[in-house]
Amino acid sequence: MSYSYLSHLECPQCGENYGADSIQQLCVCGSPLLVRYKLDNLKEEWSREALLGRKPDLWRYHELLPVLDSNNVVTLGEGMTPLLELPRLGADYGITTLLMKDESLVPSGSFKARGAAVGVSKAKELGVEKLAMPTNGNAGAAWALYSARAGIEATIVMPQDAPKITRSEVALAGAKLYLVNGLISDAGKIVAQEVADQRLYDASTLKEPYRIEGKKTMGIEIVEQLGWKMPDVILYPTGGGVGLIGIYKALQELQEIGWVEGKLPRLVAVQAEGCAPIVKAWQEKAERSEFWPDSTTVAFGINVPKALGDFLVLKAIYETDGVAIAVSDDEMSLEQAQIARLEGSFICPEGAAAFAAARKLAHQGWIKEGETVVVLNTGAGIKYPDTVQVSPPLLEIGEFITKR
Amino acid sequence: MSYSYLSHLECPQCGENYGADSIQQLCVCGSPLLVRYKLDNLKEEWSREALLGRKPDLWRYHELLPVLDSNNVVTLGEGMTPLLELPRLGADYGITTLLMKDESLVPSGSFKARGAAVGVSKAKELGVEKLAMPTNGNAGAAWALYSARAGIEATIVMPQDAPKITRSEVALAGAKLYLVNGLISDAGKIVAQEVADQRLYDASTLKEPYRIEGKKTMGIEIVEQLGWKMPDVILYPTGGGVGLIGIYKALQELQEIGWVEGKLPRLVAVQAEGCAPIVKAWQEKAERSEFWPDSTTVAFGINVPKALGDFLVLKAIYETDGVAIAVSDDEMSLEQAQIARLEGSFICPEGAAAFAAARKLAHQGWIKEGETVVVLNTGAGIKYPDTVQVSPPLLEIGEFITKR
Repeated sequence: MSYSYLSHLECPQCGENYGADSIQQLCVCGSPLLVRYKLDNLKEEWSREALLGRKPDLWRYHELLPVLDSNNVVTLGEGMTPLLELPRLGADYGITTLLMKDESLVPSGSFKARGAAVGVSKAKELGVEKLAMPTNGNAGAAWALYSARAGIEATIVMPQDAPKITRSEVALAGAKLYLVNGLISDAGKIVAQEVADQRLYDASTLKEPYRIEGKKTMGIEIVEQLGWKMPDVILYPTGGGVGLIGIYKALQELQEIGWVEGKLPRLVAVQAEGCAPIVKAWQEKAERSEFWPDSTTVAFGINVPKALGDFLVLKAIYETDGVAIAVSDDEMSLEQAQIARLEGSFICPEGAAAFAAARKLAHQGWIKEGETVVVLNTGAGIKYPDTVQVSPPLLEIGEFITKR
Repeated sequence: MSYSYLSHLECPQCGENYGADSIQQLCVCGSPLLVRYKLDNLKEEWSREALLGRKPDLWRYHELLPVLDSNNVVTLGEGMTPLLELPRLGADYGITTLLMKDESLVPSGSFKARGAAVGVSKAKELGVEKLAMPTNGNAGAAWALYSARAGIEATIVMPQDAPKITRSEVALAGAKLYLVNGLISDAGKIVAQEVADQRLYDASTLKEPYRIEGKKTMGIEIVEQLGWKMPDVILYPTGGGVGLIGIYKALQELQEIGWVEGKLPRLVAVQAEGCAPIVKAWQEKAERSEFWPDSTTVAFGINVPKALGDFLVLKAIYETDGVAIAVSDDEMSLEQAQIARLEGSFICPEGAAAFAAARKLAHQGWIKEGETVVVLNTGAGIKYPDTVQVSPPLLEIGEFITKR
């Protein structure tokens, strides 16, 4: 058995193939590339039982990941995050089985660690020494930290308004950090120029093919944790949409190798009302989204006015009979508090958006009685201190709570 | 087989026994109580192979935990955190095998989640409806969140200077939060009065016997992850010292049931120079520590001027030929940066203290060539945004990095 059953790279837009043994960025047609594996061989040679006793991290699926040599794996222990039952919240929503895939329990406190772990590992394998990327904060933090562990020099550009703590993560990791007085799309332009000027590896979302492979492990884990059964619905807070693309890809691959069967879950892309290009495109039954002007939301990670992989996100929704839905910042805020009070979990605003959407879809009857629903919480609430306002009473020494 | 092999509670100071089927706080002699199990039965009826295929959380050791009925388990998926190799940092220290037990990957981003998970679960099993505790922040956050999930009302009192984000966690969980213009010892006095006035369950460190049981799972995991071998040295940042007491207890229990053999690891209690009562006591070969006046350190979690379990911590050090050692805040800060740059991990100041101590002990020759050393990182760096100062360049839209 090989460590990886990597085959090649394929363009989902024009069908062109590329070798996976040298650095590739976008297809010549401008589309992101997808990683393909020798699934026929995997079907023959790999079994679910082989996973028993493997470490509880995403590398347990190394056969279906793109790193060829285990010595190139750059890991901080990411993956196999909890799939938690939320019975009290489920009762509140009217959802029979409500589960949270809790991505706060990964290095750097955001699911971006998955993409970074696999992306940086493969970059190391391909001999990359310097990379650059724009970010809304969390991805940059994760890539900077994994790059440090890999000995790769990272240049990170983020909006001035990105979560402050992610600046500290990037800087402490020793990466080159720049802020921009603009959005992630403006950061992207700066990175594109720097990549051209300095001949760097472009680690921008979907401009390298491997972060999807890291993100897809969320999908594999969900079905492994459900005993290799698929849920009925998966809700995902959608900015760049890589997680949704990855989960869809993972489930298709698992179907092909015979590890899961039946209908795929209905995939739901959740966006903020202040930045909902995928929702608008879905409502118009379009194949692609349009740039969303003047986008704004407290859920900074999903403030992406135009995603390079929008057509892949929309395809995943259409083909699984899913939906795209927008929620307001107020709804996120209420849901964040509700989950903490009922289930003891402090989730990020993006995750709260997905929960708010679950509540709406259950209320509308789109989620039906008896269904199993998985909501992705993509990060830790502690990375967003400003989302909670607190004014507790202050006692002086010698004062007590109960008046005596 | 029973779910738990809980037997009774025992006082390590006077030897008095108590039943574990009703609420107990301290022994009548004033000492914390320890949980005892039917280890003879466990030795007969339990095997390491039984763990294979169990979920990667701390409840995989439920036979050696105090919750009798699995329905009372209140979990957010805590435990089985990574044990990471740090080869570059190890080379820098001159330590052959340097490993980090990374407790940042737990709910609320701090190892306090372990104590809270088991402590709150047992409180629920015992019928507790309201609890109260003083905290330096992270423990209160964890207990508030797990209490919310359990439906228990929590009252939390913390110093005004405790990490701000922990206020948000407590408040969002719906707990009653009070600040005190003082230290954790002052918060403790307020809680003691409130417990008396309102007849609450006192969840103060070691005033309930069960949080040790949660913390001890760090020790079980370390040896399971090392293939049921013990490391040579374990370093632990020590405030209340519950983790060290717990790890020592776990290893003794595993020895008794025959899962590990040989010499126990040398246990190292690491403190801050600005708050080092255990170090002082150890230097004086004392059995107990004295209150440390005017304590101060950036590592807020180990700013504990006098720990209730000090004699248990000191006993664990003496009996394993360990040491107690203090490091400065500057040393922590340098170490925090070094670990991020070399290994890509953003750890908390308390964890950085333990690493700084490892560096010193290797330099002094106390840690010898060829030894396996485990350092506890007790929490996520992202909970302490103020420990890192960053001033990245700000670009306007249209500006680029490289002057062109």
